[in-house]
Amino acid sequence: MKWFGRYGSGAESPRSRSRSRELRIDRVALTDVALDPVRVIAQAAYLQLGEFAALSRAAAEAPDLESKSALATAAGRLLAKHRSLVGALERRGVDASAAMEPFAAPTDRFFAMAAGANWYESLTASYLVGGLLDDFFARLVGGLEPDGPELARLLLGPSGAEEIVSILSAATAGDPRLGSRLAVWGRRLVGDTLLIARSALPETVRTPTGEARVEPILTELMADHTRRMDRLGLTA
Amino acid sequence: MKWFGRYGSGAESPRSRSRSRELRIDRVALTDVALDPVRVIAQAAYLQLGEFAALSRAAAEAPDLESKSALATAAGRLLAKHRSLVGALERRGVDASAAMEPFAAPTDRFFAMAAGANWYESLTASYLVGGLLDDFFARLVGGLEPDGPELARLLLGPSGAEEIVSILSAATAGDPRLGSRLAVWGRRLVGDTLLIARSALPETVRTPTGEARVEPILTELMADHTRRMDRLGLTA
Repeated sequence: MKWFGRYGSGAESPRSRSRSRELRIDRVALTDVALDPVRVIAQAAYLQLGEFAALSRAAAEAPDLESKSALATAAGRLLAKHRSLVGALERRGVDASAAMEPFAAPTDRFFAMAAGANWYESLTASYLVGGLLDDFFARLVGGLEPDGPELARLLLGPSGAEEIVSILSAATAGDPRLGSRLAVWGRRLVGDTLLIARSALPETVRTPTGEARVEPILTELMADHTRRMDRLGLTA
Repeated sequence: MKWFGRYGSGAESPRSRSRSRELRIDRVALTDVALDPVRVIAQAAYLQLGEFAALSRAAAEAPDLESKSALATAAGRLLAKHRSLVGALERRGVDASAAMEPFAAPTDRFFAMAAGANWYESLTASYLVGGLLDDFFARLVGGLEPDGPELARLLLGPSGAEEIVSILSAATAGDPRLGSRLAVWGRRLVGDTLLIARSALPETVRTPTGEARVEPILTELMADHTRRMDRLGLTA
């Protein structure tokens, strides 16, 4: 079983791995796992709604007006992603609400946990969780016909990352204790986030053999997670 | 002193009063009160941010997925209005955050009150407060050069009204006690909402003579408020 199929230019050198997220996703996508397109798009859509809710709450609780306005704008981008994914469901002739329903309760529980104990933890979670799940779901949807590449680019498009990084890196630079608390929080988040990611894989892949095959993806997801921790000034 | 100046077609008959909000605002705008454009746009912009935060919280707390998705979409429209008003401030060469700052604390207090005791009260407030303030600020900004009419149309454009009316009128139709509780709540909200509106008027107008002149606006605002109560199935 081959986890990553190539599409787009197969001639790219290994060096291109280090290039932008968008280029990378054009190259790799899960094409040979039998995914239910409606299921995976619906889960991605509901996750974006959860990310939107979390970030708009963080915007409402922002201690200064510049952060508030910046985070609200960022939340708007997540909402737009949600809407586009709902559009992809509707194009497939399904009732989007009904399709998302099975994911509502577990996703809500996950985001209740990821809200953390304070504003900084919420923001850290928005960035780290959003980044990891967007990366992962971009790979899942990337192989879907006919709009996979478009949906993958959508998921990897502008999110709230720039705004959050700018707020949090400034905060941790001036407060090493905050930085070390958020580093612990960032490490704690990974496990639950990967469980959400895993829940998107078909049952048939959730076996020891299947899990072994998913290793390369996990390795890449973890490397990108570490890069995000770095950008926040946190030790992974 | 004349509160309402006419622009656009002055030839419209009185019958057009009963036509759409957009047509009406094209006809009347506060043009002869000396408003500070930056101040009034900044207050309108911050109010939209507050309305956005309130509605996205209501979306997050929605008991069913259809309402959640619909309200999130509606919240996105309020965010777009906020962004456009911020754009109008930036076109005037001012720092939008600094311009909005004086309105942050009183607006936040107002929306904390307007959140009400439960989800239905929050939604009712979003609709009634949003409607009244959008109407009022559309009149205030309508006379500003050069983009007044455009800003007024923006404020009166799609909000969350349709989604909220559909949810609440269904709920009150099936539960008369909820309807009468929300009617009390709707009446309570008006006073505080009018205080917010009044705070946007220049000091020079906030005198007994000035207040008398503002009567026609108040009468219209209250008539529209009553219409909104009706749409929710509430007795004003």
